[in-house]
Amino acid sequence: MEVVIIGGSDAGIAAALRARELDPSAKVTVILKDAYPNFSICGIPYYLSGEVANWSNLAHRSREHLEGLGIELRTEARVTSIDTQGHRVQYQLRRGSHEDVHWDRLIIATGAAPVSPPILGLAAAQQNGRVYFVHTIDDARSIMDAIQRMAARRAIIIGAGYIGLELADGLITRGIAVHQLEALPHVLPTIDPEIARLLEPELVAKGVELATGTLATSIETTGTSVRVALSTSNTDRPGLAIGDIAIVVTGVRPETGLAVAAGATLGAAGAIWVDRRMQTGIEGVFAAGDCVITHHRLLGETYLPLGTTAHKQGRVAGAQAVGNSGEEFDGIVGTQVVKVFGQVIARTGLTEQEALAAGFNPASAITVADDHKRYYPGAETLTIKITGDRSTHRLLGVTMLGSITSAIHKRIDVAAVALSTEMTIERLMDLDLAYTPPLGTPWDALQIAASQWLGEIGASDRRPNGIGSLHDRA
Amino acid sequence: MEVVIIGGSDAGIAAALRARELDPSAKVTVILKDAYPNFSICGIPYYLSGEVANWSNLAHRSREHLEGLGIELRTEARVTSIDTQGHRVQYQLRRGSHEDVHWDRLIIATGAAPVSPPILGLAAAQQNGRVYFVHTIDDARSIMDAIQRMAARRAIIIGAGYIGLELADGLITRGIAVHQLEALPHVLPTIDPEIARLLEPELVAKGVELATGTLATSIETTGTSVRVALSTSNTDRPGLAIGDIAIVVTGVRPETGLAVAAGATLGAAGAIWVDRRMQTGIEGVFAAGDCVITHHRLLGETYLPLGTTAHKQGRVAGAQAVGNSGEEFDGIVGTQVVKVFGQVIARTGLTEQEALAAGFNPASAITVADDHKRYYPGAETLTIKITGDRSTHRLLGVTMLGSITSAIHKRIDVAAVALSTEMTIERLMDLDLAYTPPLGTPWDALQIAASQWLGEIGASDRRPNGIGSLHDRA
Repeated sequence: MEVVIIGGSDAGIAAALRARELDPSAKVTVILKDAYPNFSICGIPYYLSGEVANWSNLAHRSREHLEGLGIELRTEARVTSIDTQGHRVQYQLRRGSHEDVHWDRLIIATGAAPVSPPILGLAAAQQNGRVYFVHTIDDARSIMDAIQRMAARRAIIIGAGYIGLELADGLITRGIAVHQLEALPHVLPTIDPEIARLLEPELVAKGVELATGTLATSIETTGTSVRVALSTSNTDRPGLAIGDIAIVVTGVRPETGLAVAAGATLGAAGAIWVDRRMQTGIEGVFAAGDCVITHHRLLGETYLPLGTTAHKQGRVAGAQAVGNSGEEFDGIVGTQVVKVFGQVIARTGLTEQEALAAGFNPASAITVADDHKRYYPGAETLTIKITGDRSTHRLLGVTMLGSITSAIHKRIDVAAVALSTEMTIERLMDLDLAYTPPLGTPWDALQIAASQWLGEIGASDRRPNGIGSLHDRA
Repeated sequence: MEVVIIGGSDAGIAAALRARELDPSAKVTVILKDAYPNFSICGIPYYLSGEVANWSNLAHRSREHLEGLGIELRTEARVTSIDTQGHRVQYQLRRGSHEDVHWDRLIIATGAAPVSPPILGLAAAQQNGRVYFVHTIDDARSIMDAIQRMAARRAIIIGAGYIGLELADGLITRGIAVHQLEALPHVLPTIDPEIARLLEPELVAKGVELATGTLATSIETTGTSVRVALSTSNTDRPGLAIGDIAIVVTGVRPETGLAVAAGATLGAAGAIWVDRRMQTGIEGVFAAGDCVITHHRLLGETYLPLGTTAHKQGRVAGAQAVGNSGEEFDGIVGTQVVKVFGQVIARTGLTEQEALAAGFNPASAITVADDHKRYYPGAETLTIKITGDRSTHRLLGVTMLGSITSAIHKRIDVAAVALSTEMTIERLMDLDLAYTPPLGTPWDALQIAASQWLGEIGASDRRPNGIGSLHDRA
């Protein structure tokens, strides 16, 4: 069995590992564009911050380790075409030569590419070495080289999604001033606005010059700086951001060119359509990761490129490629978390707007609760927005914000498991969760939020009269 | 509707709050032995440590607050009898006078009392003010008075259950040397021995003189010290522990005297039997908290006195008392967590031994995994023991140990929700959990543990060949 995988990031390598794991006789070849198989691109902000001393530390596994597991790697190799009749993949090496390889099963894991926003002069400024995208280890190394070469003191970050905010955190940590631009009226477009906005004071407090509702309209470079012209909805006065370097992080789009040329069907957001076995519909061809649609347990087919999903989808594709037809992708619930300085924001499930669009009858409640008993030192409050269906009381989504010391990343996982199992909000309140005064409250914060939702929205037989038996320092 | 509640701790107050919440016209009276309604007795170790400056801070709510909610409090009142025919409760006030009160519904929330181990001379040493139990706020105040009066430098703690370990942590934090005795061969009798033992180096490193497998056989006091004679299974040489003060924490037993006299039936471990509506079987009489049995989702009826359960049971009893027949106790899964110095240990579900005794076909795997990506500073390993049913792959239990920075308390909750929903270990691996490099790994540590279990024990179609695709720095 010859398995060829196009792409050497999370999905591609997960597929390769799983194929070799289940079928040690399989010949598994991974073809990747760059020289960095199995790198954690999620770690780039922490390399730029200086917290990760060397870019090579971002490798999940070394090349030697992968090869030792029997995975053949073709690095710096750009696939030029897929022959679905002859079952071959053609690729061009960096030095120019063309090669090809036969496959019995092919896995497309080409990932995503940064979206280039319509900003006048962007391409030229990129060529002048003052504007960068952040998507690959090469990008990270180029940015680091530029920062060091120009002894950069001021950066402009275009975009305030989760990578944009991680970069702001990273650059400020490094000692570089940050001017951050976001076209939308708030940071974190994928997070519920009511909660996302609460993060903004943290950014400002840490020194980020934050400009939401602000569009970058043009970019020009001088000998010593990059200048971004701004259009702000808040004011008639056109603004200007000046920096040593500008970094564009305005989202990604799935890389589907090869798959489309091979005859693949596209689905949500133009990503490659796959079933739960990661089959593209082309005989013997699977796809996984940031280039494909995602099965969402509440939304059906959607597009939400995340590392966790890429690992899981890749694992399924690898198993399927070697004939393990039992493994299917179980679907996501949209769980995400981001650390921004000392704060953590996380979500799972749907926001109220998403739930409405998906045909639910949603209602939400916001609760502020302690992470642990207030009498014990270090207690912090966390803010929880809980969304449930008004008719069925099914939990639909949770968004949380709190201190990095408050275990937000695992509190959201508790909600994620509840969502996965289609739990009602009443049932959330009944969960047997851990308590000790230094780390929790007898009713966990999530249960207090559930109680708040039931009190405001829930059934009359559960509706409290306002004395707040859980909420009040419980 | 006149509701009378005997007991003013977690269950009693939760019942009172819920009754008033659902029926603001209800007359709710709480009769309690001491002067401390609604105190967090779980917080006593942190008062003794000095981390909580004043014992009064341990109140969940003030007396004024409770009274403001319409709850009548009879403090320092000892109930002498329950009249189930005339629907009255007789009680004696501290000053000696007798009173009684009528009830339409009665809730017994008398809690538990410390077990007095068979140690020669224990009662006399208690009278001499050198030996204490720890169960009430009065106990905590007495111990603090004794520590300060005798400027105590050396304490003997008899028992190394979770309260014993919290006390060791607290007293060492205060600057008092601790000699801790445990009859069993390891600390934390209710935790899986393989994991519990891993905590012992932390105790020793922080200065606890730990003697497991050691029985206290007799106690005597001198003018300046308390001396505990020891019998150790490890050695023939009888030992001696010498301290300024000794604290006995060897477990609790349910307080059932009043209930039994009133005709209640006893269940597991001699606790008051109740159904899921907290009904005792006596017309109009409910019971909740540390004095009653607990419904366990895997074990059926058991006895496991915990604050979280007391709150939930109390809430159900309060609702039932005012006629809300829809609310039932949903059952626990045995979730517990304890912080000991810089380490946290937690469990949910069953240990392998408990699972075997309960008729399951259990198998376990132990995994050591990173709490977050190792390239990001501060990564710590955590140890996870996962137990599942060999036949059905149903998750049966999880025990975890790790650093206080590793969110063990919420990681165990993720497992607790999975247990509550009768998830298989395969399904655990499919969960959509949160990931960002500073706080997690693409496959969460719990999923890596699940993978390990499946690899060692699981079905052949999932069995990896040992290359460890998840485990290996994933």
